[in-house]
Amino acid sequence: MSAKKLSNLPVWQKLTQQALIMNRPENHLRNLLRDENRLERFSSESSGLWYDFSRQRINEKTLELLIGLAEEREVQQQFRAMVRGEKVNQTENRAALHTALRNFSDDPVFTDGKDVMPDIRKIRHDIRSFVEKVHSGEIKGSTGKPFRHIIVIGIGGSYHGTEFVSDALHAFADKNIEINYLSNVDIHNFGKVVSRTDPETTLWLVISKSYKTTEVLANVNQAYEFMKEKGLPLEKHLVTVTSKGSPGDDPSIPKIRAFHMYDFIGGRYSVTSAVGGVPLSLCLGYDRFERVLKGAEEMDHHAKDSPPHENLPLLAALISIWNNNFLGYEAQAIIPYASPLRKLIPHVQQLYMESTGKFVTKEGDLLDVPAGVIIFGEAGTMAQHSFFQLAHQGRPFPIDFIGVISPQYQEFKCKTNGITNHQELWANMLAQARSLAEGRENKDDPKKSFPGNRPSSLILLKELSPEDIGRLLAFYEAKTVFESFIWGINPFDQFGVELGKILAADARSKVKNYPFDSGDDFSLYKKLVREV
Amino acid sequence: MSAKKLSNLPVWQKLTQQALIMNRPENHLRNLLRDENRLERFSSESSGLWYDFSRQRINEKTLELLIGLAEEREVQQQFRAMVRGEKVNQTENRAALHTALRNFSDDPVFTDGKDVMPDIRKIRHDIRSFVEKVHSGEIKGSTGKPFRHIIVIGIGGSYHGTEFVSDALHAFADKNIEINYLSNVDIHNFGKVVSRTDPETTLWLVISKSYKTTEVLANVNQAYEFMKEKGLPLEKHLVTVTSKGSPGDDPSIPKIRAFHMYDFIGGRYSVTSAVGGVPLSLCLGYDRFERVLKGAEEMDHHAKDSPPHENLPLLAALISIWNNNFLGYEAQAIIPYASPLRKLIPHVQQLYMESTGKFVTKEGDLLDVPAGVIIFGEAGTMAQHSFFQLAHQGRPFPIDFIGVISPQYQEFKCKTNGITNHQELWANMLAQARSLAEGRENKDDPKKSFPGNRPSSLILLKELSPEDIGRLLAFYEAKTVFESFIWGINPFDQFGVELGKILAADARSKVKNYPFDSGDDFSLYKKLVREV
Repeated sequence: MSAKKLSNLPVWQKLTQQALIMNRPENHLRNLLRDENRLERFSSESSGLWYDFSRQRINEKTLELLIGLAEEREVQQQFRAMVRGEKVNQTENRAALHTALRNFSDDPVFTDGKDVMPDIRKIRHDIRSFVEKVHSGEIKGSTGKPFRHIIVIGIGGSYHGTEFVSDALHAFADKNIEINYLSNVDIHNFGKVVSRTDPETTLWLVISKSYKTTEVLANVNQAYEFMKEKGLPLEKHLVTVTSKGSPGDDPSIPKIRAFHMYDFIGGRYSVTSAVGGVPLSLCLGYDRFERVLKGAEEMDHHAKDSPPHENLPLLAALISIWNNNFLGYEAQAIIPYASPLRKLIPHVQQLYMESTGKFVTKEGDLLDVPAGVIIFGEAGTMAQHSFFQLAHQGRPFPIDFIGVISPQYQEFKCKTNGITNHQELWANMLAQARSLAEGRENKDDPKKSFPGNRPSSLILLKELSPEDIGRLLAFYEAKTVFESFIWGINPFDQFGVELGKILAADARSKVKNYPFDSGDDFSLYKKLVREV
Repeated sequence: MSAKKLSNLPVWQKLTQQALIMNRPENHLRNLLRDENRLERFSSESSGLWYDFSRQRINEKTLELLIGLAEEREVQQQFRAMVRGEKVNQTENRAALHTALRNFSDDPVFTDGKDVMPDIRKIRHDIRSFVEKVHSGEIKGSTGKPFRHIIVIGIGGSYHGTEFVSDALHAFADKNIEINYLSNVDIHNFGKVVSRTDPETTLWLVISKSYKTTEVLANVNQAYEFMKEKGLPLEKHLVTVTSKGSPGDDPSIPKIRAFHMYDFIGGRYSVTSAVGGVPLSLCLGYDRFERVLKGAEEMDHHAKDSPPHENLPLLAALISIWNNNFLGYEAQAIIPYASPLRKLIPHVQQLYMESTGKFVTKEGDLLDVPAGVIIFGEAGTMAQHSFFQLAHQGRPFPIDFIGVISPQYQEFKCKTNGITNHQELWANMLAQARSLAEGRENKDDPKKSFPGNRPSSLILLKELSPEDIGRLLAFYEAKTVFESFIWGINPFDQFGVELGKILAADARSKVKNYPFDSGDDFSLYKKLVREV
């Protein structure tokens, strides 16, 4: 048993030693950055991304040891097994084939002895022809009006990734269809969403693998009632994305149509399936959705095949492990200096924290080192005016800065201080990365002293094209999976959410006896708290 | 010097000992919660809030020691000095008088020998009469159309709090004026905001204390250019909120009018000044803004006067210090089970992390214990489907759950599983708090085992009225200030943001030489990275 422990691996122990060395004052980032070759050495470009990790607290030796760790743990072999369709989701006895969703080669992908590609191609084709009919007005609402709004009912993995992509590419949403998300069971969400959509021109798109998720069903029921009151039949405004054979696929329940999801795609890895495909194609057109897939495919190939020294998501995973397990940082921030990428933060928060928030290995042994960290963030420069005080002079945390060379809006070129707003954004991004790393001492006035040595990476994209969004999506997916493979945990299950579900079901019989009126005394709810 | 160290205080040392005791297995929350009197003992109601901290990892002894710490550090005395107008912002030689903004008594508040109340009352009156003229159509746009959109240009403290309140009370925004925020210098923000507003009916509201903030000026210049292209004079669509005598107050620059800010109000404590007052009154009506003030006033009195055992923000501050400095949690989550409170998260993130992200005391000595923690969060139940896997089975972090008895939308009462959506929300909130605290062992299948012992508090509001929002706002302000007073840091300055500003100014001369075209090679920007 102890032989299996990560911390007993010679390379892990060497990394622990290496951390002591990197913690020495002479290895402050301010000193490391004096090396003129550092940027060349600790940055890499591939698949439309440039990854600069020169402001991480590593040296050549650290990087070699980290790559040794990746090799020891055979993470690329595991990644290839995943792509081939092996059952890498051992606890649920399933494959994890999100990479097949963007496979445009003619190669088959087998799982359980069956090639999944014909089905995947068929669904792509079905999505295309369906959305074309919506856009042309061939498919329309019950009163004969074309659809102008979609309300996506879905939560967690059926929501965050799609919201990220739709928000990131909002500037290209030229299909005259506005997307709204109804995720939370909270009636405030329902109230707000229906207050700003026109029921006659609304398509309700219900996304749920099991079609049993409490939040989803509660919102669907609310939607039936709401549409009925408006004198509109929901079934003529309803499309589902769900597992074959689920209640949402039941042919006896009328709907415009159902699209299928697969059991070998986990929710948080499902953006490039019909989960994202249907809503994104409705807003952006199918072609742009396919361009997202092509960008993701490019990154998948890169993650699978390129050697560790050049492998961007693998390098990012190793840096993340280093910061977490060896330098002891418990949180990581994502700061995109490109506000269309703002929703990447909650997406990666879900993707990464649900995948890596584990304390047992895939074999069921207790993990001897902490896995996942807390992911949070804010767009730059907003973050500078929010929590960067703490980043500079308080508790340090590593940061992924994300920059974009060319913005989506090209028409606003007015200059302030001699530069455009976009150039100002860049000046700030680079200045922050540098000042966090280098710091600046002020012996006379400690409150104006900056300790520095705060690590960060810089991820650059050329623009915010659909391909770029696909690349970024697949980059963070691969990084998450690589880290999990190093720890030996299963990034595709989530048993940790079960206990809350069980207790919530128990609690229903209690809460139903309470009126929830604003005039109620707190003492009544104190009674409820005691009961649950 | 060492006598000044917090960790040398006898009460601090006793708390350190107490943490060892509370870390023992017999003090697992599951055991502590067996005590039937626990909820009664560790909860308190006041000023329209009920605060339940029975699921925190404390016992009677812990609470007594924590209150002893508060008394030793004289935090309520310091709070009273703040309210009285003493210069508690020592490093900037200023008072911190956000509480005076919601003082509706006839009592004067002196700072620098001057009663600030007449001015504060006058501005409240000016805001009321100004917004009434906008609502009546007496003040309108340059083409004679009434204002239907406001675009608030402001960042950090001039933005987050207002966004929180406007979002929380959105259901009551009945003045037919839609609020948009333009905070980031990012041109994507500008592009998106102007794409969804009508320039003829848009009021640009520029909020900046110094009127020198880079992001603000860059956006204002962009706005001038944009309006000029539309053939509209910005000055007839422009209102400023700024310090007396700032460039935004310059009478030679035409505008509809300027409202004044005071140097004794810090940005992140400014929601209840004209910063929030003008935009919130425009959307919600002045009366609702005043109701927010009244709720905040109530909480201010409570924080100032009520004894520690019943003082909700003080108890919350002590719990926060306990979790951070004694139990070692480096992050705290805010999970409102009320989606209108979602923007409370970025507001408190800014308020708390900018106030407490310090490593020197107000006297300029190095702090010997870590101050602020990372604040993050998501609305429930969304969080359950996002990062609660990590909360249950990964790295633990304390949580503030926030619940609301009566929702803003009363008309949607359709039931699923026998309960309304709002009841479902409550069932989940209570089930999460309990399951995180108690956990559940599964000896046969470790991946289905829940360690529990995850601390949380529950904050209840009766509804989401303007008063409730004011109470919640003032609760988190007071909590932040109390914690800072315990550490002996200044919660009102932010010298940690200065170095980044200096380096960004330096970087402008470099970035201006780069084209930022999508066809550019990464190597060009690698050169730029090297230069900055």
